[in-house]
Amino acid sequence: MAHQPLTLNPDRLLPADPATRAIARDLYKSVRDLPIISPHGHTDPSWFSLNAPFGDPTELLLAPDHYLYRMLYSQGVTLEALGVSSRAGGPDTDPREAWRTFAGHFHLFRGTPSAMWLNHVFVDVFGLDVRLSAQTADHYYDVIDNALKTPAFRPRALFDRFGIELLATTESPVDALDHHHAIAASGWGGRVITTYRPDAVIAAEFDGFADALEAFGEITNEDVFSWRGYLEAHRVRRGEFQAAGATATDHGHPTAATADLSKAGAEALFAKVVRGEADAAEAELFRAQMLTEMARMSLDDGLVMQIHPGSFRNHNAGLHASHGRDRGADIPTRTDYVRALKPLLDRFGNDPRLAIIVFTLDESAYARELAPLAGHYPVLRLGPAWWFHDSPEGMRRFREQTTETAGFYNTVGFNDDTRAFLSIPARHDVSRRVDCSFLARLVAEHRLDLDEAAELAQDLAYNLAKSAYRLDEPDYGDTRNSLKSA
Amino acid sequence: MAHQPLTLNPDRLLPADPATRAIARDLYKSVRDLPIISPHGHTDPSWFSLNAPFGDPTELLLAPDHYLYRMLYSQGVTLEALGVSSRAGGPDTDPREAWRTFAGHFHLFRGTPSAMWLNHVFVDVFGLDVRLSAQTADHYYDVIDNALKTPAFRPRALFDRFGIELLATTESPVDALDHHHAIAASGWGGRVITTYRPDAVIAAEFDGFADALEAFGEITNEDVFSWRGYLEAHRVRRGEFQAAGATATDHGHPTAATADLSKAGAEALFAKVVRGEADAAEAELFRAQMLTEMARMSLDDGLVMQIHPGSFRNHNAGLHASHGRDRGADIPTRTDYVRALKPLLDRFGNDPRLAIIVFTLDESAYARELAPLAGHYPVLRLGPAWWFHDSPEGMRRFREQTTETAGFYNTVGFNDDTRAFLSIPARHDVSRRVDCSFLARLVAEHRLDLDEAAELAQDLAYNLAKSAYRLDEPDYGDTRNSLKSA
Amino acid sequence: MAHQPLTLNPDRLLPADPATRAIARDLYKSVRDLPIISPHGHTDPSWFSLNAPFGDPTELLLAPDHYLYRMLYSQGVTLEALGVSSRAGGPDTDPREAWRTFAGHFHLFRGTPSAMWLNHVFVDVFGLDVRLSAQTADHYYDVIDNALKTPAFRPRALFDRFGIELLATTESPVDALDHHHAIAASGWGGRVITTYRPDAVIAAEFDGFADALEAFGEITNEDVFSWRGYLEAHRVRRGEFQAAGATATDHGHPTAATADLSKAGAEALFAKVVRGEADAAEAELFRAQMLTEMARMSLDDGLVMQIHPGSFRNHNAGLHASHGRDRGADIPTRTDYVRALKPLLDRFGNDPRLAIIVFTLDESAYARELAPLAGHYPVLRLGPAWWFHDSPEGMRRFREQTTETAGFYNTVGFNDDTRAFLSIPARHDVSRRVDCSFLARLVAEHRLDLDEAAELAQDLAYNLAKSAYRLDEPDYGDTRNSLKSA
Repeated sequence: MAHQPLTLNPDRLLPADPATRAIARDLYKSVRDLPIISPHGHTDPSWFSLNAPFGDPTELLLAPDHYLYRMLYSQGVTLEALGVSSRAGGPDTDPREAWRTFAGHFHLFRGTPSAMWLNHVFVDVFGLDVRLSAQTADHYYDVIDNALKTPAFRPRALFDRFGIELLATTESPVDALDHHHAIAASGWGGRVITTYRPDAVIAAEFDGFADALEAFGEITNEDVFSWRGYLEAHRVRRGEFQAAGATATDHGHPTAATADLSKAGAEALFAKVVRGEADAAEAELFRAQMLTEMARMSLDDGLVMQIHPGSFRNHNAGLHASHGRDRGADIPTRTDYVRALKPLLDRFGNDPRLAIIVFTLDESAYARELAPLAGHYPVLRLGPAWWFHDSPEGMRRFREQTTETAGFYNTVGFNDDTRAFLSIPARHDVSRRVDCSFLARLVAEHRLDLDEAAELAQDLAYNLAKSAYRLDEPDYGDTRNSLKSA
Repeated sequence: MAHQPLTLNPDRLLPADPATRAIARDLYKSVRDLPIISPHGHTDPSWFSLNAPFGDPTELLLAPDHYLYRMLYSQGVTLEALGVSSRAGGPDTDPREAWRTFAGHFHLFRGTPSAMWLNHVFVDVFGLDVRLSAQTADHYYDVIDNALKTPAFRPRALFDRFGIELLATTESPVDALDHHHAIAASGWGGRVITTYRPDAVIAAEFDGFADALEAFGEITNEDVFSWRGYLEAHRVRRGEFQAAGATATDHGHPTAATADLSKAGAEALFAKVVRGEADAAEAELFRAQMLTEMARMSLDDGLVMQIHPGSFRNHNAGLHASHGRDRGADIPTRTDYVRALKPLLDRFGNDPRLAIIVFTLDESAYARELAPLAGHYPVLRLGPAWWFHDSPEGMRRFREQTTETAGFYNTVGFNDDTRAFLSIPARHDVSRRVDCSFLARLVAEHRLDLDEAAELAQDLAYNLAKSAYRLDEPDYGDTRNSLKSA
Repeated sequence: MAHQPLTLNPDRLLPADPATRAIARDLYKSVRDLPIISPHGHTDPSWFSLNAPFGDPTELLLAPDHYLYRMLYSQGVTLEALGVSSRAGGPDTDPREAWRTFAGHFHLFRGTPSAMWLNHVFVDVFGLDVRLSAQTADHYYDVIDNALKTPAFRPRALFDRFGIELLATTESPVDALDHHHAIAASGWGGRVITTYRPDAVIAAEFDGFADALEAFGEITNEDVFSWRGYLEAHRVRRGEFQAAGATATDHGHPTAATADLSKAGAEALFAKVVRGEADAAEAELFRAQMLTEMARMSLDDGLVMQIHPGSFRNHNAGLHASHGRDRGADIPTRTDYVRALKPLLDRFGNDPRLAIIVFTLDESAYARELAPLAGHYPVLRLGPAWWFHDSPEGMRRFREQTTETAGFYNTVGFNDDTRAFLSIPARHDVSRRVDCSFLARLVAEHRLDLDEAAELAQDLAYNLAKSAYRLDEPDYGDTRNSLKSA
């Protein structure tokens, strides 16, 4: 079989109708080269503090990316064959062999965002011009492997080349933030900030909760086994995260449940949690109460809250036993917001100091619950299409199902939410293309004027993320609702 | 900034593909000027009985429209600033200042049906030709305010100008229907009918339930604190509503639950409700039972039942405390129909005398539950896309998700469901455009012949509403299934 | 009224945009004439063993098709008028009169797949060229009735004419499979295989469960009233079904619940079920456990499992009392998969010997649950859009909502799932057109290359069904994941 050429069509993802495409193309051109704001993601800050070369193609692109290996696993390829580590450690699979296995199954990704992101990386970052397949696997491996050894492919060089204005990572409350401090001290101009993600000291059934609590006490010097000290420890660390650039917190809970217990009730519940005596319902209630506590702290320090609910983590019991957490077996579940968020909203829903960005893995909530909630409550904004829905069709459904009720200005721009650093430009590019296509349809159907669409294209690609995450502001506060670019 | 022109493109909302648009345009032209049948809405009958001039632009267009102020509220604008009254009464906000605040935030409505409806009103009703903005706020205020003082903008003149053939309002069972009687006695030709909406005397936890029951007894001279007298009072009032033109009842419950209790069980439950001792589950059961009682009465008097379930009313506790009901904080919830409707359907689901129109705020029920139910039960019809879904995308999803299972003839045309009288032509126009676009796609894809589409366009815009709401018939009965326009 | 012509436009169902349509047309041409693989359906094997002529048009096309009579019933036509039998037996309605009634209501099917399938049959199978209506009813009746008396319209002749390579029927575990044996012995070349559908001996509240169990014991000579004998009887019959060509089992449960009880627990539960003492929860638990038992047997014999959950059967109590089961009153319900399938997946989810095809009637599960599950678990595949969703819009939503997460290769091609034998080519044709249209959009939007789309078109129309149902394989096993057509 002859090698198939690989190119990135300049019109990719734009609607086929010629008149609509022409509008979309113009809108896209006006935002294509805007700097990237990445306010939520999972890259490793050590990349930017140490600026060491990335490893081989498999270590960089394949083994850490559960979007990729879950698909191959679903078709009977073992994780070992792909170089994915288990609880017993990394397999001794030859990275080139793993890459060949991946390449030989690349057709499985047809029509998926993974294929689109990867092809963007292959062409734009590495200059490849033939399609990945069993036949071209070695060529790919060699080209990528060689590139990674050059200075132009070091993390900071790529960061600059990618046009990233700001990148947020996510750290645990027991993280000393050394890499962020090192980046700040390095004199390098890249803006890499942290995000406060306290799940490890809140989720009582989390692996290692007790150890995390212990570490939380050590790093803060607070008595974290008392309710008062525990809350104070959060305040301390939130302040330290803010000092390292954080403007937001992030909460990945199984549900969107919130609670508003009395002080005595919360204290008694915490005592049970600390003693390891909380059952599943109590662990859930504690998480729910902690969202309200985090909101209360946000009134004071201005950190934007992000709530990412609805994932059933580690669904595959056998794989969890053999390979541990985060191995592509997280599955979305039906998620209620209307009743779940009410306790927190009853307490703080009208407070102009608070900003909460809510995400979902349950698209049926977009039009029914989330757009109506965000279209009313001053504290709520809708996070973009997330995870399994972070795709052209998913982004389109997001706009189609939220815009008419919540408008565009209760949304917050794009999140790439990725640890796949090289794919960040590709992901933002997809988002810009899909949003411009949606806007172009509204223009073509005379539901929006072209000047309005042009302004919105800028807002969706750049302004809204800065505004919603309070990235411009020396202080949070009464300017948050002032976004209006013209 | 120069003022942007404002026009209504004649092709707005029609699909961009030229061949499909040409078909849609022809279909739309054939229904554009049909009279408006508005069988479900919330305009104030006193407008048409008194025919007094409307107030100022803010009082007419902004302050009563929760679609508008909820969006501004979501972005931090206070309700006071918009002239919306609270429990303490109307604010003393200058109406022109409120209008300016609204105008300065009009960009928030980009891509929403509110913007489309308003622009239609601005151009078609008031002849405005520049876009609303902070800069044009005063111009708008003056133009609208002056127009409202002229005879051509009195309610009856607009009713006639709008080509409304029939308009249904909604009244409580304790309403004396004086305005409807006055309209009938006035010699004015406009057909304004009422609808029997008994929620106030059925929802036991409703503000003022006890007072409403008291008033219900007074207006009917029945012992409404006995089960027998209470049911008889409903019969009496249904008859009086029919005499004032009503052909339908309307029921806005939190869920679609129905029940079919024994007579003794219903009587005992009612006794508890009357004593104020019903808990939340019993109040729900009472509502459920009352749907079945209402259906039973419909067998005799032929009133069409409308069930509008699934809204969590007054979700914002703080706003409810300060501003009362209906302040834009009603949020849809997941709604089951399959189990909820079964008791009523088991009792009356095959009775040709009964007609029930079911609505939803939970679009996930369209294809899964509602279309299959309406495509089988002779008593069921599907109400159109409602409230948060009364929008171009919402209407499109409604057709895409219901037509293949329920067909077109188990749907009932369009409801504007509005108290925003001036927007009624705009709303029907949107519906006609969206339905013609859907039909045009079926024709373009050779799934429907053009003559069939033309006939359906008439049915969806006009005939089905008359047929489903029994608006033609001196008596209900065996003619209800005879709709077939050719 | 002049008769309207009836033709099948060669571009029907292809997207209207000219560039996209051109791509779709080419893709469709490449698969249009591929043989039909029908791995799941409900035709009657006696048709092919006896090869007797079909009855009259009403008996063949109308009376057995609940897609058709449910729609007419929903508009007030009685089942008697359509020749549908009740518990009292067949009505004495004249078949020609029934056909006229049907013809006079044919407009009700506008925009539905039933209209599309029927028109395909009318033109392609019977050569009709005017539209069905009250006026043409007799012409239709005569043409079809005459044709059915000719040899070319006998079942085997049509099977061959339709280009069916393989057709699976569905039989109960108490069926002796005589017709399949007769087909095999007949020397006729048509491949008609059976499918093991054990619901009748698993669903404890099923009409006639006790009788079915009795018969199950007789046909297997096992003590089916002991847990061990009952399981052995399943093994015996599965083997006999395999000998009659079966490669799959099928399970139509109210929910997707699975369970993994201890041997003692399962035995105790079974004892209760056999004694008729199981309550609804226990009957449900027994069904859940039996899915896991069936999976365990599949490890040994390699039969592919199909799970068809989520239908509330016989929802219309009155109609069930008068007319019995399967009278168009089955209604889908909300269906959970994430928690429901976990017990089975915890036990066997990573076993390469097992293959489970999961279907849904709850489209909200496509993107949220089913695509993520199938995109991870090696044993899971997604069945195509089913029943109420077996329609152009339903198939399109299926691809739009599953492809980006599960890819194409975790899906299994098309199922016609029908007892309407004459419509089988029409149904596969619709599926091929819709899939090619979806692929064409991806190509037009530069999300897929044309050569990839061409390969996928073949896979979706033919290869995936053969692979997923193990139709090629003398034995099951390690080749199942080897599908890659180029």
